[in-house]
Amino acid sequence: MRKQALILVALAAAVLMPSATAEDGYKLWLRYDALEAGIPYLPADVVTGCTTPSATIRKSLDELDIAFASLAGEKLPQSRTAGEGSLILASRKCLDGLPQGLRPDVAGLGQDGYVIESVETGAGRALLIAGQSDAGLMYGVFDFLMRLSRSKDVRGLSVEQTPAVKLRLLNHWDNLDRHVERGYAGQSIWNWHLLPGYVDPRYEDYARANASIGINGVSLTNVNADATVLTPQYIEKVAALADVFRPYGIQVYLTARFSAPMELGGLDTADPLDDDVHQWWRAKADEIYTEIPDFGGFLVKANSEGQPGPQDYSRSHAVGANMLADALAPHGGVVMWRAFVYSAEEPEDRVKQAYTEFKPLDGAFRDNVIVQVKNGPLDFQPREPFHPLFGAMEETPLALELQITKEYLGFSTHLAYLGTLWEEVLAADTYVDGTGSTVADVIDGAFTGESLTAMAGVSNVGVDRNWTGSHFDQANWYAFGRFAWDPDVSAEAIAGDWAALTFTTDPDALDVIVDMMMQSREAVVNYMTPLGLTHLMGTGHHYGPAPWVDDLGRADWTPYYYHRATEDAIGFDRTETGSNAVARYAEPLMRRWSDVDTTPDELLLWFHRLPWDYEMKSGRSLWEELVRHYDLGVQQAVDLAEQWQRLEGQIDPERFAQTAAYLDIQKREARWWRDASIAYWQSVNGLALPEGAEPPAHDLDYYKRLEFPNAPGQGG
Amino acid sequence: MRKQALILVALAAAVLMPSATAEDGYKLWLRYDALEAGIPYLPADVVTGCTTPSATIRKSLDELDIAFASLAGEKLPQSRTAGEGSLILASRKCLDGLPQGLRPDVAGLGQDGYVIESVETGAGRALLIAGQSDAGLMYGVFDFLMRLSRSKDVRGLSVEQTPAVKLRLLNHWDNLDRHVERGYAGQSIWNWHLLPGYVDPRYEDYARANASIGINGVSLTNVNADATVLTPQYIEKVAALADVFRPYGIQVYLTARFSAPMELGGLDTADPLDDDVHQWWRAKADEIYTEIPDFGGFLVKANSEGQPGPQDYSRSHAVGANMLADALAPHGGVVMWRAFVYSAEEPEDRVKQAYTEFKPLDGAFRDNVIVQVKNGPLDFQPREPFHPLFGAMEETPLALELQITKEYLGFSTHLAYLGTLWEEVLAADTYVDGTGSTVADVIDGAFTGESLTAMAGVSNVGVDRNWTGSHFDQANWYAFGRFAWDPDVSAEAIAGDWAALTFTTDPDALDVIVDMMMQSREAVVNYMTPLGLTHLMGTGHHYGPAPWVDDLGRADWTPYYYHRATEDAIGFDRTETGSNAVARYAEPLMRRWSDVDTTPDELLLWFHRLPWDYEMKSGRSLWEELVRHYDLGVQQAVDLAEQWQRLEGQIDPERFAQTAAYLDIQKREARWWRDASIAYWQSVNGLALPEGAEPPAHDLDYYKRLEFPNAPGQGG
Repeated sequence: MRKQALILVALAAAVLMPSATAEDGYKLWLRYDALEAGIPYLPADVVTGCTTPSATIRKSLDELDIAFASLAGEKLPQSRTAGEGSLILASRKCLDGLPQGLRPDVAGLGQDGYVIESVETGAGRALLIAGQSDAGLMYGVFDFLMRLSRSKDVRGLSVEQTPAVKLRLLNHWDNLDRHVERGYAGQSIWNWHLLPGYVDPRYEDYARANASIGINGVSLTNVNADATVLTPQYIEKVAALADVFRPYGIQVYLTARFSAPMELGGLDTADPLDDDVHQWWRAKADEIYTEIPDFGGFLVKANSEGQPGPQDYSRSHAVGANMLADALAPHGGVVMWRAFVYSAEEPEDRVKQAYTEFKPLDGAFRDNVIVQVKNGPLDFQPREPFHPLFGAMEETPLALELQITKEYLGFSTHLAYLGTLWEEVLAADTYVDGTGSTVADVIDGAFTGESLTAMAGVSNVGVDRNWTGSHFDQANWYAFGRFAWDPDVSAEAIAGDWAALTFTTDPDALDVIVDMMMQSREAVVNYMTPLGLTHLMGTGHHYGPAPWVDDLGRADWTPYYYHRATEDAIGFDRTETGSNAVARYAEPLMRRWSDVDTTPDELLLWFHRLPWDYEMKSGRSLWEELVRHYDLGVQQAVDLAEQWQRLEGQIDPERFAQTAAYLDIQKREARWWRDASIAYWQSVNGLALPEGAEPPAHDLDYYKRLEFPNAPGQGG
Repeated sequence: MRKQALILVALAAAVLMPSATAEDGYKLWLRYDALEAGIPYLPADVVTGCTTPSATIRKSLDELDIAFASLAGEKLPQSRTAGEGSLILASRKCLDGLPQGLRPDVAGLGQDGYVIESVETGAGRALLIAGQSDAGLMYGVFDFLMRLSRSKDVRGLSVEQTPAVKLRLLNHWDNLDRHVERGYAGQSIWNWHLLPGYVDPRYEDYARANASIGINGVSLTNVNADATVLTPQYIEKVAALADVFRPYGIQVYLTARFSAPMELGGLDTADPLDDDVHQWWRAKADEIYTEIPDFGGFLVKANSEGQPGPQDYSRSHAVGANMLADALAPHGGVVMWRAFVYSAEEPEDRVKQAYTEFKPLDGAFRDNVIVQVKNGPLDFQPREPFHPLFGAMEETPLALELQITKEYLGFSTHLAYLGTLWEEVLAADTYVDGTGSTVADVIDGAFTGESLTAMAGVSNVGVDRNWTGSHFDQANWYAFGRFAWDPDVSAEAIAGDWAALTFTTDPDALDVIVDMMMQSREAVVNYMTPLGLTHLMGTGHHYGPAPWVDDLGRADWTPYYYHRATEDAIGFDRTETGSNAVARYAEPLMRRWSDVDTTPDELLLWFHRLPWDYEMKSGRSLWEELVRHYDLGVQQAVDLAEQWQRLEGQIDPERFAQTAAYLDIQKREARWWRDASIAYWQSVNGLALPEGAEPPAHDLDYYKRLEFPNAPGQGG
């Protein structure tokens, strides 16, 4: 009794100690918080069909232990025979222990699919979770646990889930010195220096989080690649990570620096048609697979922003990719070749380049190459039209690359739920196969019939205690996994699920949080890049507004290149009279976006150059409408902060306080974006502010003089 | 009842969740773990003498709440009148509420001193904690709580404590981009980008930890300074940190880049005798004190390793320091001017330089300048003799600079408790005022009669969850605070206190841990730099052995410069026949260390160049003795790992596992140091290994080829 009392004291202490065990967000959406109303369903026991469970099934059982210890205060007992109230786990390899009648037909579930359903055991009703693969089973277990965590009664459940996309990858832009390019959550979680001698337990928590949302691949290193990661010294480190991830169904990928045969191999060329180069990559692949038998493959950024590539030898992207693909093919690896390219010389309209280079290569790639295309043709801006390569490549599998980290949407401090951005892209109709051929259809292979399908998200994970720099940014990691599993799921549903797992199951509070999330990205668009404007951010670090910059190393790095504002007009003419980038889209999009009258406001200045006094659909002038959007964005940022304040007392104090501080920063920075932008536009167009609009807080020079040499996440 | 049960479930859950609430070391030595034997003393209530308690006293009361909630499961009630079992808090400003008879005489306690003693209230015996200042009272509260945490019965206690050193500072070598030079615990905890908008609660936990060991000042930025921190934008950020630290009695300091008047002020000189430069610094100081009224002052590295300084204008260090001192003096600030200098030209023996430059300036500094001197004349090596400036400056206050971060002692993975190193330095007799004038006497003002006394420790803190990269490295932070408070305390006593607060109060386990700590630094000396060898580490990153390097930009950056090994002999002759650096020490040290026969083995090759077959006191040849020391070091590393293994089950699994992994790394790296060093010495001396000694695992070329471009903590 005394001992028990002491334990309780210790428990109380652990919870009461203010900072050390405060709600710091480390647990992500896997909190398994005990529910005030009690657990909706408590299985009598767990039964598996495995005589010797695989590592993956053991981890699934561990996860049940973690969850029930937390949700119900006790782990579930394991049992050999299923009966009333049992939870049965089964997979193709894990059926033996089950009576014939309870062996589910898992053949049709696909590689990672699962079912959750009520079954009659003969001794009462039980709940069955079954996958074809052990990984599928594990995904089912996570789904089950997260439904339970959201207070859902799962007893009558009948779920069948199969992921629409085969490879669901995080791409880390992490350098070997632990700097994360475009990272706003601290250093890389990969502690290369201490690997393999010290394997941080955090790697496993990272794997759990990924597995819980279906992510099955991780590219560890920056696409601006360092060949060092391909040395034996580093392959050993990578293998240690692969060992941690394997039970969670996660494969590791590396970025391959195209010039590695020269840098590491001492060759005097990296020409993909050179035999020695071929041989070097083959040997390197063999070496990697010796250490990491389930290595996923290479992610490659070539001939883009200074990276080496096949064009250095006048070879096409296809020739380069195929060489790597041939080296990986014997081992089952794939090449993910990025289409984010623009010429080293100053090009035609930058948004046309990827199409220009890749469209002619359709069908020229090996079967184990997938071309990875950003959602838009520019670069992860707050809003772009979808990338015209989607639908244009009929014989080449395309992966969709999304940016989870918010390089252009306010870093970690601005609330910008990206679910709505991604939903917009995935639901966009390419019309290449008539109405209803969406980007999602291209990605999941419905359009091309490809079985090699993939979606990649540029990770926002770092060593910050809450993983992603802000609590709300966890939602973007979560949403990426959910969309990669099912590109047709709604952003709002994801937001609701995430918020319930993360913050509270109280319906009123959830309404507020989901509402904040759903409006947040449009708020950012409004105060940063309204009406189809784009690429207006500060140079290098991309922090804050700098629309006035017009004199960088090349024109298409400047904001001016994209807005082209003069005394008379603003916007980039991408119609026939301009760059004609619009011609890359199928009809009726081409016609619709070529005509200023049928172009939606939100893409107006992306496709058209218009006079400041152009009359908008609203009846207001373009200038008035622009200012109005800035004001709306600022007001939305104010609203977000106020909505959050209403939740005080319903959210734990630490997460409430950090989020409140961040929303205050967002509010101030929204105003900064608006004021600096308006001050600049006025300096160009000489127009007075529309009536009622507040003048900028400072003059233009003030904004121009601001410097942020130490802003986080910079490249290079 | 139902609610209680739910709370207990939630508590249990919080503790059982494996990773999120595992023992991650975040709480440092302020764990306040409930003791198995129960709390030895539970006050009836807390009584303060304050009608309106200061922020410092409120934080002291908060700390009591945190501690008793954890140690005893309940906070102490506050009461207006003291009686049987009360805990009474008092300070000069906090006496009003106490009856006349209970008002302690705090006048003699000094600025930060305190008493803890049993007093008779008239209504029973109470325990009084009293300081002259509120900070003194707070130090008393922490002392009280840490005694209680170590299971000490404090009721009969009669403690009177006054710190021997006035300014007890951490020096962070943190860049504004959050890279920590010589940091092995992740990025800087100062998130400059988010300050002042977001004030991380961790800053307060950092302040609590420092206050608990008496640290009262923090220099925030790298001594290789960036003038940017002196801009208004950054001063506002610094002020936000100062606001957090102030209640904990901690002042902030900044590193001042000597050329700031040019870089920020647009002046064309930084000449300390230029009126505009003077004026610029005065205005800058005024500006800082407007924002931070209790700003501590400037820490300056000038004319050292490429930093700008007064010598750029042919002015002395004193002229430079005095200019800054004059700017700070009206506000009560101090200048800590570092003596770690060596000429930009290739100098005489590098270990002589600081003395050569500073000794002639004795007495030339303003009253608010303190010259900050590293413990040894070279650079924080595993072993050096004490710095000959200690005792040589009779009219200049000297601060002792220690390096808490283990730049040269195995980064974060090697267990090297620095308490023994610092004890060795502090207890070293300078003989400048006869026998018994130790370095500690110089530091605490006993020798010079100075009241401006200081000790600075180069911080090992970063964003790693356990703060210092390894659990054992927390001991070095703790020990620094303890030594700064009392330079005469024993390293072993500190180790015992720390281990009991950090790991366990079990006496047998404590014996093992303290024994490990006490032998650890000598182990490192043995496998890295035995017999007075020094500076043998890898170039730039300082990771691992590289005794063969002999061709850097300047000779005194190379290991070869320090060991000078040839076929015939090894060591640096610092006697009369060599650089005569030994002459900088007072008699009898000079005579003792000049004579090879009276030089202790541990400093032998520091002062003498000797043939490989020189016969040691042991009767073995120098070569045999050297190999023997390497072997001993490797064996000690093996022993450390084995000793730790014996503690399995007595230490929580997470801290046990990480420490075990680190000790394994240390074991392997000890062997690497030994093997690489021996392979190199053999390549030079051509000698066979002594009988029984194992040959190196690889040939010398193997060790030379190892590259670590991404080792952490690099400068620049």
